[in-house]
Amino acid sequence: MPTKYETLLEKIYEINDLNKALSVLSWDREVNMPPAGITGRVQQMTTLSRFTHELATTDELGELIEAAAAEIDGADYDSDEASLIRLVRRTYADARKLPPDFVARVSDVSGHAHHAWVAARANNDFAAYESWLAQIIELSQEMSDYYGYEDEKYDALLDKYETDMLTSEVRAIFDAVKAELVPLRQAIDEFGSPVDDSILHQSYEISKQQTFARYIANAIGYDFSRGHLGTVVHPFAISFSRDDCRITTRWNPDFLSPALFGTLHESGHAMYEQGTHSDLARTPLARGTSLGVHESQSRMMENVVGRSRGFWQTHFPMLKATFPENLNGATHKDFYRAINKVQPGFIRVEADELTYNFHIILRFELEQAMLNGELAAADVPAAWNDKMQALLGIVPPTDTLGCLQDVHWTRPMLGYFPTYALGNLYAAQFYETAVTQNPAIIDEMAQGRTDSLVAWLVENIHQHGKKYTPRELVQRVTGQPLDHAAFIRYATTKFSDIYGL
Amino acid sequence: MPTKYETLLEKIYEINDLNKALSVLSWDREVNMPPAGITGRVQQMTTLSRFTHELATTDELGELIEAAAAEIDGADYDSDEASLIRLVRRTYADARKLPPDFVARVSDVSGHAHHAWVAARANNDFAAYESWLAQIIELSQEMSDYYGYEDEKYDALLDKYETDMLTSEVRAIFDAVKAELVPLRQAIDEFGSPVDDSILHQSYEISKQQTFARYIANAIGYDFSRGHLGTVVHPFAISFSRDDCRITTRWNPDFLSPALFGTLHESGHAMYEQGTHSDLARTPLARGTSLGVHESQSRMMENVVGRSRGFWQTHFPMLKATFPENLNGATHKDFYRAINKVQPGFIRVEADELTYNFHIILRFELEQAMLNGELAAADVPAAWNDKMQALLGIVPPTDTLGCLQDVHWTRPMLGYFPTYALGNLYAAQFYETAVTQNPAIIDEMAQGRTDSLVAWLVENIHQHGKKYTPRELVQRVTGQPLDHAAFIRYATTKFSDIYGL
Repeated sequence: MPTKYETLLEKIYEINDLNKALSVLSWDREVNMPPAGITGRVQQMTTLSRFTHELATTDELGELIEAAAAEIDGADYDSDEASLIRLVRRTYADARKLPPDFVARVSDVSGHAHHAWVAARANNDFAAYESWLAQIIELSQEMSDYYGYEDEKYDALLDKYETDMLTSEVRAIFDAVKAELVPLRQAIDEFGSPVDDSILHQSYEISKQQTFARYIANAIGYDFSRGHLGTVVHPFAISFSRDDCRITTRWNPDFLSPALFGTLHESGHAMYEQGTHSDLARTPLARGTSLGVHESQSRMMENVVGRSRGFWQTHFPMLKATFPENLNGATHKDFYRAINKVQPGFIRVEADELTYNFHIILRFELEQAMLNGELAAADVPAAWNDKMQALLGIVPPTDTLGCLQDVHWTRPMLGYFPTYALGNLYAAQFYETAVTQNPAIIDEMAQGRTDSLVAWLVENIHQHGKKYTPRELVQRVTGQPLDHAAFIRYATTKFSDIYGL
Repeated sequence: MPTKYETLLEKIYEINDLNKALSVLSWDREVNMPPAGITGRVQQMTTLSRFTHELATTDELGELIEAAAAEIDGADYDSDEASLIRLVRRTYADARKLPPDFVARVSDVSGHAHHAWVAARANNDFAAYESWLAQIIELSQEMSDYYGYEDEKYDALLDKYETDMLTSEVRAIFDAVKAELVPLRQAIDEFGSPVDDSILHQSYEISKQQTFARYIANAIGYDFSRGHLGTVVHPFAISFSRDDCRITTRWNPDFLSPALFGTLHESGHAMYEQGTHSDLARTPLARGTSLGVHESQSRMMENVVGRSRGFWQTHFPMLKATFPENLNGATHKDFYRAINKVQPGFIRVEADELTYNFHIILRFELEQAMLNGELAAADVPAAWNDKMQALLGIVPPTDTLGCLQDVHWTRPMLGYFPTYALGNLYAAQFYETAVTQNPAIIDEMAQGRTDSLVAWLVENIHQHGKKYTPRELVQRVTGQPLDHAAFIRYATTKFSDIYGL
């Protein structure tokens, strides 16, 4: 006779299996599906998502969770059992708040919106996407009402990506970041020695980019025996189990950075889930705890590792051997400076570490306005351009380079964007702690190696998966709550050096 | 208020969606999944397959089918509605015969067996696969008992691939084929002018093979805008909707035929489902009617088209331009003779049109013995080799080249193999009818074009999907039951010419 907890575990496994099946369909849609296949794929995902949602919201499951919780009452807070109960209680309560019809509508609208967006972006045709964005905003408003909130509508959605975080907290942190970064950026503008990044903007053969991307992903510790690299329009990482964590990249024939730093970024995400403890397998604990912490792992690999001097001192010779016609006249120092050039640009995913945060603040502010009914879909392009002017001093010449650039608004995913900038802050705070606890990391990093860093990340962050909330995790790992100071120290040191301030 | 038929249709759509989702997981497993991902994937597919099976076997569905059938009573036999009722009645009755636990066990064992087979085949280690094969045989025996049969255990399984076909009928047809083909093969051996196929066994760069494979698949009418070409160990075609019908190929660096004829073969399968009528979309009618008829479409493209003189007269210049270093000294006539060389070999999928049928008869006879308990898993390698000696006069030096070569016995799919040889017979019979009804096909074929042939196939076969049983279809299309005479005429004419008999 199985215990209540064991019975619950079987149910949790089943729900997890179906959610991962949905992920496979979603991955395939981006990587392999011919465009004509979208109608069938939307139907398949809508049906599967409805069944999965039904299974995850039955009265019986709620009763089983409580019975299992009573059975393990007194279990250590850190135990897998207590952690799973905490998580499934929260997930169950959230899932019950969304009616099945609403979930099916989200899946259906999102599927079609996504493909409309791909075409609108390719054709710089916001008008063709406007009605879809309007539906996404409406779905987001409905969703925040279903979830409920105390202070602000936006809280309800933010909580789904960064558990327990409040909009007011994010606003305060972002304001502090702005206050510190604006003077640094101004100092770079006024006093910095100019950085030439033309080396990155040359014709780079795509098949060679692919070979080198595999090389550096492997070098930082992404495990290809439990992974796969695919090609997409808008890169992402996704996992179907800890032994099948995939990355995707896009290849720009005239610009090297998207392939290099996109691959490092997605590898960081995938390594987080490859590093979850095997005891958590087939449960929702085997994931990153929040999008912000997830992003800290991708930013760690993309920026702290991948845009460091030591990394390119070690790996530039291989890059040069791959592209001799492009790089024969350059040194690793030229390359290091080029990839760290600070310059306001239109595209978030290509932004430098400093101005990146302004891209996020722009979206964070627009999203709140959309959600509160203060900004209609039709007015988004103009509002976008106004904010770009105010925050970055530039205006995109097309919507493709503006409000159509990101995939996120093809789903009711408002509340997601701020986690990107939070990721930068978590990353710097984690890294400061890591090198304090194990100074060998600094020596290895100077030689382009990540062994000790990755071991520290697995030990302190990865293995725990979703056992702790981000608030709990950052306190547990660093002994302090999330703070922007480490990032400011990191950025000031690095860019003062590069720009000779 | 929806009608009963409309309500049934919604249920059928849902079940179809979940079955197609399973197909995506299965495709991904073969094409992209890292080997380490197998544990999670088996769990996902087992869970999804159990839910789908449950949904397809409820009492309510049975009642709904009968209520909908009563509602449309009197509908034309050829109507989509009457055809769907006939099909889902049959499928429902079959599905109810298999207990859910058994279905889950099949999925679980097959998932693991498949990966054990990949390793065993790579290492020529039958012993490592033996216990899995034993389980597959047991599952097949159980399955035939669940389905039930009148005359022979094998009938129960054969019916699932070739509806209404009896083992005794297949045996009679295969005996007749043997009686006719053995003298032809002997005549080739004794009196034929030797054919040199060394041109095919050279080093062919894989990336160029891939480019050329895409070229010929497109040339015969495979629609890449509704398709995708992937790389696998054992090629197959699969469809997720009529607008997403995929093919897969393997690439041999030292032998050109697998890529060329494998691609044409799988394209023929995929074109069948791309050609189903859009009114049948999202229902189980949007598939080939049986494996034998499906195989007739792949063999039509692989052999009748792809191994014809006219095809290579037209396309050999492009092949030569792709591989000048390999083919500069050769003419299209040399190539045509090389790809039609008759020679007993170990590998079924590389066999010529004549000896191919012996490979099938071997498997057909072994399968009956396994199913009837007359042949244990451990004795399969020896029995295989004995039959090879008797039928083809050769003995494979390894099990990798023998009983481990095919993927089929990683599932309880006994009864599947005979449909391959039936496909050759259907193909020849369909082609004779096609050229009688539209002689322009002959002229086009002489110029390497398939427009009229494909139009005829869509009109007479593809668009109907699974509306008619194979018995009904062949009678309707050719005015006669399945017969081996057309294939014998086709093969005798072609090979007498090539071998100067």
